[in-house]
This record gives sequence, structure tokens and C-alpha cells, in this order.
Amino acid sequence: MKSQKPRAVVLLSGGLDSTTTLAIARRQGYEIYAITFSYGQRHEIEVTAAERIAMFFDVARHITIDIDLRRFGGSALTDNIPVPKGRGNDEISHDIPSTYVPARNTIFLSLALAWAETLGAHDIFIGVNALDYSGYPDCRPAYIEAFEKMADLATKAGVDGAHFTIHTPLINMTKAEIIVKGRELGVDFSMTSSCYDPAPDGKPCGQCDACILRRKGFAESGFADPLLYKKDGEHP
Amino acid sequence: MKSQKPRAVVLLSGGLDSTTTLAIARRQGYEIYAITFSYGQRHEIEVTAAERIAMFFDVARHITIDIDLRRFGGSALTDNIPVPKGRGNDEISHDIPSTYVPARNTIFLSLALAWAETLGAHDIFIGVNALDYSGYPDCRPAYIEAFEKMADLATKAGVDGAHFTIHTPLINMTKAEIIVKGRELGVDFSMTSSCYDPAPDGKPCGQCDACILRRKGFAESGFADPLLYKKDGEHP
Repeated sequence: MKSQKPRAVVLLSGGLDSTTTLAIARRQGYEIYAITFSYGQRHEIEVTAAERIAMFFDVARHITIDIDLRRFGGSALTDNIPVPKGRGNDEISHDIPSTYVPARNTIFLSLALAWAETLGAHDIFIGVNALDYSGYPDCRPAYIEAFEKMADLATKAGVDGAHFTIHTPLINMTKAEIIVKGRELGVDFSMTSSCYDPAPDGKPCGQCDACILRRKGFAESGFADPLLYKKDGEHP
Repeated sequence: MKSQKPRAVVLLSGGLDSTTTLAIARRQGYEIYAITFSYGQRHEIEVTAAERIAMFFDVARHITIDIDLRRFGGSALTDNIPVPKGRGNDEISHDIPSTYVPARNTIFLSLALAWAETLGAHDIFIGVNALDYSGYPDCRPAYIEAFEKMADLATKAGVDGAHFTIHTPLINMTKAEIIVKGRELGVDFSMTSSCYDPAPDGKPCGQCDACILRRKGFAESGFADPLLYKKDGEHP
């Protein structure tokens, strides 16, 4: 028997935020189509994490799309630009960091939109967050609204009267709140990978913005982070 | 000496429209960064055409991005759905054809936007046309405006005050007018490839929407189409 649930496309990076977002979409009753991007990121290990998570949540389908954003350059996540380490919370929150990948969420949402249209889905979930990462322009509510308007005009489905909704359930949550919500929904955070610059053995560095925000979030949530971080001076 | 010209990213498919668009951007004084997409289209031959054209116009840089849109399906250009043949002009103009690729221009413009931001360019040229192809939603002026608004919100450059302009110089031109304009600007149309379903030897089919519009355009322009079309019953 064919599922009667509405379909949703969920952007799944393999990190804490996108995994919790997937769990939220599932709890809301959607049949989950998870999409992951292998874009030349130095933390390619997150693609493996995404596969584990998709399997754990028994999604209807999971695809990984190869799109080499290194061709454009301009980001510490894809280039030989150093990933900032050991920054304070104020620094993390108040400027656009070198880990910004030009137009990344726009590229990812466009590809998710293509898949959604093919699937007959009008709901796309993305785990952007405007609090901790106020530095990334493509995580702001005004951007998301502009993308939705564009999506309706871009597509055959939109011409036929459909409205695409970009769901951003985490947009106003703190990292600690996200962790608490994820725990409630059965997320096993040992499967998630957040680090921008993991060691060759996969251990998170503990010092990049993503690690710092994750560790702070766990500390505030009262839960222990199940990941083992690379120790100071430890060779991979 | 570094060029003082402003940079523009031009979407170059290798067809008649995008080639004329490139020639227009060049005439307007931009330094040209041409971007082509190898997306699993059955008319992959257009990628080779794009390379020839980029070389002919001596662009500053030409890149071809691989992005396999067959993963999503849903289009006669990437799937085993037949390409419509022998349709009349009314049919071509008044419905969204099966050659529509879900969200294609949004994906292509997003990738062009990423490159533009890295290059410090704020101008993107795309050869969309709202007259002959009124069937494609992502060729309409309202769509282009919505994309521009989204682009300014999506990017670090936009946050820093830049405004991205999506130039659509052909949007209100007939195919015949485009051909006349291209000839004026030195376009050699023998280098361009328009067919959606070329024979294995590269000859255009002459029967798909793209061939029909091209042939009609040449007939109305008074110029001869330099391409040799596949003959009826001719085996490739």
C-alpha cells in the first residue's frame, strides 16, 4: 500500500542541527526524502554520518548529490584557507566567518527544490539557525522568505498553484534547545558530526566554531556530548 | 596589467541564445566568465559547443560544472521520457513541455551566483526568453526579479551592500531578432547547438521544439541556418 503521508525533502548534512530537523519533520508526519551534498568539504566525514542517520531513521529515500564547490573557491570549508580555531562566542556571532561558502544554502535549496518538484512534495526542511550563526546571511528568515517566493515562480508546480514552504524549525532555537529537542525525538547524537576540520581518524578538533558551539550547547543542555574530541597535541 | 573591466558571469549552454547573450555582455564592456553545466542532458554535445564558443570569444575563464540532474528525474531532457517532435508553434508556446527540467535555471543561477560572489562580480547574464518559450516558468521576468532579491539576501556581498543583477537581454526578443543581433556582434552560428535530441553524429534532429524554433527564427531573420539537419529516415 502506498504511503498516504505527505512527502518532505530534508537537507541532511549529518550534523546535529540537520539531524534534529529530520526528526522534527518525521514527528510532524512527513514521509522523509533526505538529501546530502558532497561538495568538496574538508569535513567529508559528515556524508558518512548522514548515511548512518538516514538509515537509523529509516527514511523513504536518501540521496547524496556530488557538486564540487571547490571549483569556485572562496571558503575555508572548501579551500586551503585555514579554519578559524579557538574563537570566542562574540567573534563567532558577529561577523561572517571564512567558513561561509558563497551561496551554499541557495545551491542546496535549489537542488532540494528540484527533487521536491519531481516527488510532488511542497515541503522542504533545512536546519538553519539565526541565533548562533547570525554571521551566515543565508540562515536569516528574510532570506528564507525570499527563497520561497522565488521557488513558487521558478517551478511548474508553482505555476499550477502549489506553494513551496521552506521549514526552518530551528531558526530561533539555541544550540542547547536543539539538543534537548533532539533527545526528546530519539536522536542519537553519537551519530552526528559537526566539526569543520576533523582529524584523519574522524575525531572532531574541538576548536573550530562548529565544535565550540556544539560543546557550549551540550554544556548548557545538561546532557553529555557523546563524541570523543581530539586531545591537545594528539597526533591523528 | 590587470583588466579594469567589470566582471560578469555568463551562463553558456552552447546554444544560439546563450551565445548571443555572451556576445552582448562582451559588447557592453564586461570581462566574461563563462559557466557551462554538464547535467546529464541527452544533448551533451552542447557542452563541446560551449567550449568552442568560449575559445572563439576569448573569455577570461570558462568552467564546466558537473551536476547530475538525472538523479531527480522528471524531464525529457534527462530521462527516458520522449522529447516531443513535430509540434506546432501554438503547442510549443502554450504549455509547459516535458523538456522542462525541474528548477533548472534556479540551480544554474545559484551556481553562477556562487562563482560571481567569489569573483567579486555582481552581474550575471542568462539567455532566457519569455516569448518563444513562454512555457518555462523559470524564463519569466517575475521569476528573474525574485531571484535577484533572494541573491542579495543570500550572500555576504549582498550584506555588504552589493546588488546582484541578473541580465536577461533576450527576454523580450523573437528568435529572429536574436539571430540578427548575434550576427551584428560576430556570432558564428555554425558553432552553436540547439537540438534537444541530436543524432549520435551530432546532427540536429530538426523536429524537437528547439530545432523548430531555431529554423523558424532563421527563416524569419532572412539568414541561412549554417547547421546541417538530420534528413528524414537518415540513420545516424
